[in-house]
Amino acid sequence: MTKTVDAREAAGLLGDASSALILTHKNPDGDTVGSGFALCAALRKRGITAHVAGEKPFPKRYDFLCEPMGERPADFKPNLVVSVDTASKKLLGALGDGLDEVDLAIDHHASHEDYQKNLLLRQGSASCCEIVADVIDALGVSFDGYIADALFTGISTDTGCFRYPNTTPSTHRLAARLIECGARSGELNRLFFETKSRARLALELEAMRGIRFFENGAVSVVTITKGMLGETGCTGEDVEGITALSRCIEGVEAGVTLREIGDSLYKASVRTNARVDASAVCASFGGGGHVRAGGCELRGTAEEAASVLVARIREEL
Amino acid sequence: MTKTVDAREAAGLLGDASSALILTHKNPDGDTVGSGFALCAALRKRGITAHVAGEKPFPKRYDFLCEPMGERPADFKPNLVVSVDTASKKLLGALGDGLDEVDLAIDHHASHEDYQKNLLLRQGSASCCEIVADVIDALGVSFDGYIADALFTGISTDTGCFRYPNTTPSTHRLAARLIECGARSGELNRLFFETKSRARLALELEAMRGIRFFENGAVSVVTITKGMLGETGCTGEDVEGITALSRCIEGVEAGVTLREIGDSLYKASVRTNARVDASAVCASFGGGGHVRAGGCELRGTAEEAASVLVARIREEL
Repeated sequence: MTKTVDAREAAGLLGDASSALILTHKNPDGDTVGSGFALCAALRKRGITAHVAGEKPFPKRYDFLCEPMGERPADFKPNLVVSVDTASKKLLGALGDGLDEVDLAIDHHASHEDYQKNLLLRQGSASCCEIVADVIDALGVSFDGYIADALFTGISTDTGCFRYPNTTPSTHRLAARLIECGARSGELNRLFFETKSRARLALELEAMRGIRFFENGAVSVVTITKGMLGETGCTGEDVEGITALSRCIEGVEAGVTLREIGDSLYKASVRTNARVDASAVCASFGGGGHVRAGGCELRGTAEEAASVLVARIREEL
Repeated sequence: MTKTVDAREAAGLLGDASSALILTHKNPDGDTVGSGFALCAALRKRGITAHVAGEKPFPKRYDFLCEPMGERPADFKPNLVVSVDTASKKLLGALGDGLDEVDLAIDHHASHEDYQKNLLLRQGSASCCEIVADVIDALGVSFDGYIADALFTGISTDTGCFRYPNTTPSTHRLAARLIECGARSGELNRLFFETKSRARLALELEAMRGIRFFENGAVSVVTITKGMLGETGCTGEDVEGITALSRCIEGVEAGVTLREIGDSLYKASVRTNARVDASAVCASFGGGGHVRAGGCELRGTAEEAASVLVARIREEL
């Protein structure tokens, strides 16, 4: 039975712990990583032993957050487990194995599922980091440069650098405060939004050359195959964020990116504008997400995956 | 002899006028258009007859700002002329013909030249709209939805949607306030940053396929010829903002975009990262701009233009 808590109550639970493990979601993005490490640093400032866990090592671009916090000792036994930005137990991946529920979940996903004792959920927040910022305030910990960098990472990456309509006045005010507290906003934005490898550039050119349109241009489909990664020399990290490309063409209401992740298995990312609920579309195939950004996995060929998704999106148009 | 004024003094000059003409710079961007129309609407709310002038009709994407203000009567005789976001008289284009100086210039360019009686210059402002916002406050006019949209247009377009390092805490706080005053931030960001025509997509693919690297990858050069516009069906409007593409490759310190604008005539746009002063590079060829974004015109072939620019940038590396 989940108890709903506010930021003050969440801070109370965290502040009473002597040690805490912070779980992030698989295929980690800037928001789960930023939330995890900001909270970790704040808890340590309160004298609590804290570590962040990911299913796999975090992408290299987050080294500036991971490295200062050090490695988690193999024998670390936390007396509190908290998840950040993680909508379901499934999204914890291997971290969820043998875990019945977490003590506290801090999240902003509309599709959040029950797997926690205490839940701090704010669907109106553009990023989980905005909620974590309130928790850190409630813990009485001031933002240092590291915490400011971590929180800025989450809010800028989850809002497409303040571009997506989930961005609120609170998002901008927190950004202003974080910059004043030392967040290296210019460098971070360049890292996340302006720097692409030559391999990534080649992949984008290849992917966009193959873009297909359906429903009189209202739906676009971009396919990324394993072969394309090989040809362009891209690693998994180079692919991050490529889903944003599919929505940006005039007239497109839903942009689908299909990424080959296994034999006859595709990860579909759906990015939508005002008319289509991406979360609802993806939920039809066992996935979830937000109104404007959802994901799911589909078996079959890319053709088949595109076909069922376009048919489902058609119902929403 | 220029008199330097602050926002309060500028508002005093404007508030004492019975009619005002607001001049914008040629090849207008969101900041000059947003500054012009925000100021125009504010002056009208103060009972002052005001109009905005551009050298040519404004790009269609700004119709939502232009249309509500109506046409300027052919016999309009202002008793005050003010320029916004315009660094030199030359940048007024034909609007500057027969004009000795303007009564007031409101600008944020480091390269601002003398062509005014009164100057309100703030080089530290990311956008001219941030300065205009202070002038409107000093005029005692509250931000309605139209003014908020106009100001948001300038601050978001001049900061690459809060991505460039010119973005300050004040920029974010003003954005928060504008959204609360009714700025349709989500729609505007989509219009300016997420919506590209299929013709623009084709042009980007063609341009990026031809990207060349110099100085061990520290300088990139993208060329846009008239032929490419014809082949992809792009109009001049489709080309706006394409200069942002050249800088975004890993290792690139200076990204050059050469656009063919006449016979053996290229408009060079230089976008730089921490190590290169774009304004200084472009000043060497009679141009100017900001530290991270400058422009100039070069005669010769694209090869020749690239060659002299790369040589000049080499000195800065």
